[in-house]
Amino acid sequence: MDLLFSNITIITMQASQPVLHHAYLGVTSSKICYLSTEAPLEPAKRTIDGKNRLLMPGLINTHSHLPMTILRGYADNCNLQDWLFKHIFPAEAKLNRQAIGIGASLGVAEMLRTGTTSVSDMYFYIPEIAKVTLSSGIKANICNGLTSFDSLSFDFQKNSSYLESLEVLRDYHLADHGRIKLDASIHAEYTSHISAWKAVVDFAGEYNLNMQIHLSETELEHQNCIAKHGKTPAELFYECGALDIRATLAHCVWVSDEDIDLLVEKDATAAHNPVSNLKLASGIARVTEMQKRGLNVSLGTDGVSSNNSLDMFEEVKMCSLLQKSITRDASALPAPEALKIATVNGAFAQGRENETGRLAVDFDADIIMLDLSVPNLNPCHQEIDTIVYSASGKDVIMTMVMGKILYENGIYYTLDLEKIYYELENQVLPLLR
Amino acid sequence: MDLLFSNITIITMQASQPVLHHAYLGVTSSKICYLSTEAPLEPAKRTIDGKNRLLMPGLINTHSHLPMTILRGYADNCNLQDWLFKHIFPAEAKLNRQAIGIGASLGVAEMLRTGTTSVSDMYFYIPEIAKVTLSSGIKANICNGLTSFDSLSFDFQKNSSYLESLEVLRDYHLADHGRIKLDASIHAEYTSHISAWKAVVDFAGEYNLNMQIHLSETELEHQNCIAKHGKTPAELFYECGALDIRATLAHCVWVSDEDIDLLVEKDATAAHNPVSNLKLASGIARVTEMQKRGLNVSLGTDGVSSNNSLDMFEEVKMCSLLQKSITRDASALPAPEALKIATVNGAFAQGRENETGRLAVDFDADIIMLDLSVPNLNPCHQEIDTIVYSASGKDVIMTMVMGKILYENGIYYTLDLEKIYYELENQVLPLLR
Repeated sequence: MDLLFSNITIITMQASQPVLHHAYLGVTSSKICYLSTEAPLEPAKRTIDGKNRLLMPGLINTHSHLPMTILRGYADNCNLQDWLFKHIFPAEAKLNRQAIGIGASLGVAEMLRTGTTSVSDMYFYIPEIAKVTLSSGIKANICNGLTSFDSLSFDFQKNSSYLESLEVLRDYHLADHGRIKLDASIHAEYTSHISAWKAVVDFAGEYNLNMQIHLSETELEHQNCIAKHGKTPAELFYECGALDIRATLAHCVWVSDEDIDLLVEKDATAAHNPVSNLKLASGIARVTEMQKRGLNVSLGTDGVSSNNSLDMFEEVKMCSLLQKSITRDASALPAPEALKIATVNGAFAQGRENETGRLAVDFDADIIMLDLSVPNLNPCHQEIDTIVYSASGKDVIMTMVMGKILYENGIYYTLDLEKIYYELENQVLPLLR
Repeated sequence: MDLLFSNITIITMQASQPVLHHAYLGVTSSKICYLSTEAPLEPAKRTIDGKNRLLMPGLINTHSHLPMTILRGYADNCNLQDWLFKHIFPAEAKLNRQAIGIGASLGVAEMLRTGTTSVSDMYFYIPEIAKVTLSSGIKANICNGLTSFDSLSFDFQKNSSYLESLEVLRDYHLADHGRIKLDASIHAEYTSHISAWKAVVDFAGEYNLNMQIHLSETELEHQNCIAKHGKTPAELFYECGALDIRATLAHCVWVSDEDIDLLVEKDATAAHNPVSNLKLASGIARVTEMQKRGLNVSLGTDGVSSNNSLDMFEEVKMCSLLQKSITRDASALPAPEALKIATVNGAFAQGRENETGRLAVDFDADIIMLDLSVPNLNPCHQEIDTIVYSASGKDVIMTMVMGKILYENGIYYTLDLEKIYYELENQVLPLLR
């Protein structure tokens, strides 16, 4: 046994025993090898005393745009159209591969600091993102969302989404025992022509990839699609086979009941982004209704520039509170369900349900430890409620992925924060000025 | 000059120059004595280097129930009626004066840790709360909300609200140069008889006290009042003179346009509690409309058991985001306005507009310092946006009230956290079991 956490409170997210007190968790190599309220007989190379500490599964962020971290606070308080076309798109056009890598590093630093151990990300220049996530130690499902505005001249073989995906497939896919995965992706219904989608679906099928798509984020997007095609975006993606692959549909704010049923039929996941959807005034997804209909719902932060943070603890709390508000029922989406959305359900979305999202023997040791001795976590009448409604990502004091401690008490073991800040200041910000 | 912050970024919240870079702020005794982008000629006893640091006014929490901190996570995920009558009221009935003091200490510890320098609080056993806030160094407007369910036998002179208020008036009111203030208070329309209100109004007038009232928090409360009296709660309080005194009206979720206009006429303040209102499914206050009509809006956390945190940074962010959502306009309630609500507007609510809420010469030195070297605050394209949308109370590294540092880098100078936890475990939690 490489490491033993002893006499510690553990949120396992296992259905039978979600919380253990005065428990023991052992790690060997990348896996959890021991979990019990009895001390193990076998000695460990290192023991961490669990007094006033809590272990739980690392949180899973199923929708982000890591490099957009460099646009934090770049264009706030404006409407979606102005935000995208006057600020974000022009800024993104100025970014080079190097800037993408630096932005992704900064985003990963914030994620590890605030307890995220696995992320599904969509952006461009993805070989850079694959490189950064691989070296950082975080788990990542990476994709470059297909965009194609010209249906006549479309050639998938020449599309940057395909070319970059091939590069990631060759150099990074399934690297470090599957820690890095390439996903297939169609950016959204409104950013490509239907005739282009089949090529992505075939590509995903050929390499057994999962799918990431933005779906019905805004009312305008949803209604324009119906006006143009007589069908919702979900219906179009269903028909073209994009949901026959395990798919994560980001946002789903405006999906109909019938859309939800289509997603359920295909075992798809709605990646809910409560904070971003509020900030861009997109609406509030009907998570309670989705769950009633049997849909897997996971959580995401979206990009920093529409949030403006990557703290998944904030998303968990808001996920629960917003459902209470829109259903006008304070008992809606209780804390244990919110935490399941951020862990177990996220793992399913990523195709990682047999390796992460719960603390169990033979699962990967994707674990975070919180300090319970802070005022905001006292008293602690019920652990899961306290974590969901009172904790911040800043209460995380250790983040471990596949048995490796990546962050601990202010120290990053795989990222050089000083170097990231230096490069940000000298190589990225000048591009934006 | 006792203390100089040198070469530091400062959010002043002054209308003319809201943000200063590479600036200098000096403190002498309890006051800000120097504020400039030029270094002072006068030497200081202590100098704090401002590199990667930011100063801003301490946040002002205008609605809380400090002792309820001991009920954190005690009864979550249930509807308001069950929450109050099955859980909270029975639990509160078990609390003694000592437990109230311990709970208040814990609440103040969390407030100081997360950057709150002044609080308006409503609860019972208020001499205990006055004692704790006085010794902790925080600013506080304290009240015991009048409740009286029997109109016939009502005798204000025998009401605990009056008796405790008298005690606070005698022993704590205006203590430490006005840092502790007694407010008058009627708990809410539905928890007392109108015939009892006049006595509170006269009491407030006699001693020149401000007023705190819960107003139209839930639709049921608002509609029941109209059904019973043919008038809204705001109309009733307006008519009885309760708004002729400077009044803070907590919640105001269901107030009509006409109610808002009455509050504006009386220079009252709506204390908005966005997180608590979501959690209890009470609704979302129409802050944008209130502001359009000229109403002063401030912010509060409400009690911990309906939040479940006292981090005002979370309230600031949610205040802005929820207005964007309900108005379906991403440009609604921009970051600078949200921060003004949590500072300048809160100071007005407390009758402290000439002493706190801004950083200005001759104002009290009620200041917090944030560490800008954390990933979640980088890059920083616009300081106020970054503070509002990306900061957490955990980014606060120093909290100063009236020139005294009360919290700094994990150390509390006026509170003994170990003692609070010990008493919580041994003297409070046994009462609740």
